[in-house]
Amino acid sequence: MLSQSVEYALRAVVFLARAGEPRTTAQVAEATQVPAPYLSKVLQGLARAGIVRSQRGVGGGMTLVPKPDKLTILDVVNAVDPLQRIESCPLGLREHGVKLCALHRRLDNAMKSVEDAFRNSTLADVLADPNPSVPLGSLADSAE
Amino acid sequence: MLSQSVEYALRAVVFLARAGEPRTTAQVAEATQVPAPYLSKVLQGLARAGIVRSQRGVGGGMTLVPKPDKLTILDVVNAVDPLQRIESCPLGLREHGVKLCALHRRLDNAMKSVEDAFRNSTLADVLADPNPSVPLGSLADSAE
Repeated sequence: MLSQSVEYALRAVVFLARAGEPRTTAQVAEATQVPAPYLSKVLQGLARAGIVRSQRGVGGGMTLVPKPDKLTILDVVNAVDPLQRIESCPLGLREHGVKLCALHRRLDNAMKSVEDAFRNSTLADVLADPNPSVPLGSLADSAE
Repeated sequence: MLSQSVEYALRAVVFLARAGEPRTTAQVAEATQVPAPYLSKVLQGLARAGIVRSQRGVGGGMTLVPKPDKLTILDVVNAVDPLQRIESCPLGLREHGVKLCALHRRLDNAMKSVEDAFRNSTLADVLADPNPSVPLGSLADSAE
């Protein structure tokens, strides 16, 4: 259910957060194991949402704009492939309108649970997790 | 996050459960508001999973195979567009293996919450829900 773009965007922000200073697209691509053309597209989406910024010149590259404790998984997901909630009857039934039926209410509740979980997880939470498997593992170190 | 195929498959099983007897593909297409060629593909997926069966001859058509209290939303979803859990490190990191990092653990937990919710909702639950908006509404009546 989560797209490749979401997976790649999350890897990129984790890498940039761990780096803490500008990284070239080539460095991000290496550390995240994402093909450079695909990565560029994902980074463009993140830049449009104000999550990353490109700095030119010597020592330039991509940097993370928000502090990791202000950036949620949901922010990243919605920047590249927004979670689709069911706002009104997909069948366009006027008698249902915004009062979803029992089927669509259940589907939307499941989407809401994902949205809530992602909203409640900041990048800082992910990086501070005591889990011994560190996101990106040694890939991030070798590209730093 | 839920595909069009999932939405259409759920509409089809709701309709067949409400009908309780064989319905032609044309009747299912009308009641579910799904283009017939797309619906046929979805019904093939449901048939392969043993959820619907096609009966030939006079009075024939598609019928639902399991009783609605034995068919979950998850069964229908997995028949046409299986929920993707994260079983092992998407980066293929040997040091992570099946011990997901803090990022992928969070993503998979969200997928698990959806899977659990769908596994705990049978078609009978959906149809017996006191919600005044009945799935498919009057569309199902007009095609019956």
